Amino acid sequence: MITLASDFGSAYPAAMKGVILSRSDARLVDVAHDLPRQDVRAAAFWLRETLPYFPPAVHLVVVDPGVGTDRRAVVVRVGDHVLVGPDNGVLRPPARRIADELDGEPAVDAYEIRVSDPASTTFHGRDVFAPAAADAHEVGPGSLDTIERFEAIPTESLTDLRFPTPDISEDGAGATGEVLVVDDFGNCITNLPGGIVRGHDAVEVNGEPTPVGHTFEAVARGERLVTVGSHGNVECDVNHGRGDEAFGLEPGDTVRIRVA
Amino acid sequence: MITLASDFGSAYPAAMKGVILSRSDARLVDVAHDLPRQDVRAAAFWLRETLPYFPPAVHLVVVDPGVGTDRRAVVVRVGDHVLVGPDNGVLRPPARRIADELDGEPAVDAYEIRVSDPASTTFHGRDVFAPAAADAHEVGPGSLDTIERFEAIPTESLTDLRFPTPDISEDGAGATGEVLVVDDFGNCITNLPGGIVRGHDAVEVNGEPTPVGHTFEAVARGERLVTVGSHGNVECDVNHGRGDEAFGLEPGDTVRIRVA
Amino acid sequence: MITLASDFGSAYPAAMKGVILSRSDARLVDVAHDLPRQDVRAAAFWLRETLPYFPPAVHLVVVDPGVGTDRRAVVVRVGDHVLVGPDNGVLRPPARRIADELDGEPAVDAYEIRVSDPASTTFHGRDVFAPAAADAHEVGPGSLDTIERFEAIPTESLTDLRFPTPDISEDGAGATGEVLVVDDFGNCITNLPGGIVRGHDAVEVNGEPTPVGHTFEAVARGERLVTVGSHGNVECDVNHGRGDEAFGLEPGDTVRIRVA
Repeated sequence: MITLASDFGSAYPAAMKGVILSRSDARLVDVAHDLPRQDVRAAAFWLRETLPYFPPAVHLVVVDPGVGTDRRAVVVRVGDHVLVGPDNGVLRPPARRIADELDGEPAVDAYEIRVSDPASTTFHGRDVFAPAAADAHEVGPGSLDTIERFEAIPTESLTDLRFPTPDISEDGAGATGEVLVVDDFGNCITNLPGGIVRGHDAVEVNGEPTPVGHTFEAVARGERLVTVGSHGNVECDVNHGRGDEAFGLEPGDTVRIRVA
Repeated sequence: MITLASDFGSAYPAAMKGVILSRSDARLVDVAHDLPRQDVRAAAFWLRETLPYFPPAVHLVVVDPGVGTDRRAVVVRVGDHVLVGPDNGVLRPPARRIADELDGEPAVDAYEIRVSDPASTTFHGRDVFAPAAADAHEVGPGSLDTIERFEAIPTESLTDLRFPTPDISEDGAGATGEVLVVDDFGNCITNLPGGIVRGHDAVEVNGEPTPVGHTFEAVARGERLVTVGSHGNVECDVNHGRGDEAFGLEPGDTVRIRVA
Repeated sequence: MITLASDFGSAYPAAMKGVILSRSDARLVDVAHDLPRQDVRAAAFWLRETLPYFPPAVHLVVVDPGVGTDRRAVVVRVGDHVLVGPDNGVLRPPARRIADELDGEPAVDAYEIRVSDPASTTFHGRDVFAPAAADAHEVGPGSLDTIERFEAIPTESLTDLRFPTPDISEDGAGATGEVLVVDDFGNCITNLPGGIVRGHDAVEVNGEPTPVGHTFEAVARGERLVTVGSHGNVECDVNHGRGDEAFGLEPGDTVRIRVA
């Protein structure tokens, strides 16, 4: 199985699918092709929340604002999962989460994909990553080193990406974090752990009293609330509406929570 | 085969796919993941027009504004088709249409999915419905009662959803209905049966004379017309343009047709 | 394998998938369903850049503003590839490119699909093209003439579509072309061959000096540049931004390049 994720929108993913299917009869599963454009951090967040649910697979990830520069093209193996994409940090959070979810200590290793001409300089998804994913699928996770253009590199050399850690106040009554991503519903997903708001009926969000709900329907339609999302973090939401508009928040904005 | 339909947009459907593929090797077919957001009626309409074309399959449907409330999670079997989703009415119109299209009197039965912790309260698509769809696929439509957390319930207890019936005038020369949905082209699909306009060259739509066309090209580009859509209902369209804008219509608005 | 491409957006493609899967167990691969709406030329461009990467397959293409008129429904075979869609030109550029990429002289032939009642007049994707694609897949590319409703027609009778040819100045120092399509990133893809700008550090684009970059990162974020895209043509782009907005260009607009 090969999963495909990109910020390519409508027109470009199919060329990657064609390239893969010309080299492999892998089953293809679309993860998403409208990840926030050229936003490595948002893509890393969504892939961390998504890829670990899959059975072992090759995961092709192309969110690659530096395409054609000297950023490396890499392959990361975590147990029987293989992630293929640019070395800009986007692979690390999902790779770490996959490792956490696997039993025992999965083998982790990394490879640089040597790029040979005549790849385009602007569409490595088609010319570099898709062939690499297909070939990785064909040889299997345990034999990546048999692919000649895959050159083993130290795992520590991979570009890392860490989500910011929130500040929890000493008395435990407040915390300051930020919006990591806004989902398609307008829900603002923060880096604040859900434990901060659990057990409270209401909290202050950036100074405004806001109900804490178990479900969106805990408040009337159009009303703001705070929930603990499916990823375990605090979300700023509106029932049947857009939290980003109601709270005036976008990715990177500060969110201060204060419990009563 | 498992078909997937939701209003989840880009980021969330993949987690459902991962969960399913971890429990089943079912073939996955995306129906749509950008159904009108939290719009149970529109989703029911589109699924009624879509799911009956499929061969027997498990149909996973997640348009679920009440997620996490006490609305039930249900499974409806219609012959060899199995529909899985929230008990908010969204499953009934497609289930009825599937039954209509099947030969004979298909067996229809229903189950409540008992939700056990620690499911999230906001992402039952991933934590409740996807596992249920995978398990239903594995046991097959005839053996749903072997799944322990599926509890048989009376089919009549399912929440129903009926599209509004239009008023046809006694002389047959007029009818009043409403816009059910607006499609991605801007075509306004009404609940008025196509028979009202068939055989006429023009009708009045909300007082405005409007040509009746067999095809969009029956009028010049940018011009308004009325057609009988592929679902058999009257549509208010514009050739190479958006009917919703030209007619000033949106879902729920009244449409009065008067023939000359 | 059957690939599917359309401008149908969210709701309509699934009915085509259902129809196909009711007649065939072909593997389905989504190419794109949000091709520019009713824009035959843009669809032809994207399919020319996409379909040739696939292994032999049936390619279902429905961008069909003339649906229901007397434009023909056709099937074009190129070697072991089969294209199915309206005879409005959309199939020709990808068919030509597929032929170019195949070794030797592939057999090319064409068929008209006789449309029998009761097909809808507005959804031939579901009622005409999807069944034709499924049946073509079942008999295979060499036996299309065994399908009774496929009637052989001269290949030359197919409606053609050619992209405009640019004017190259006699001294080779300038060229005038146009924007063929704007991609989802806002990149303006022209019909100007990349050779015009290669080897130059900067050119004039419609009178404005503009850097030529190997990669988007060749300029600062938000800055305009010209690149040679993955299709080999000149593109007007912005690093981390939208070229169409920065250059004030849309499809069909003139692009004049002048080298120093």
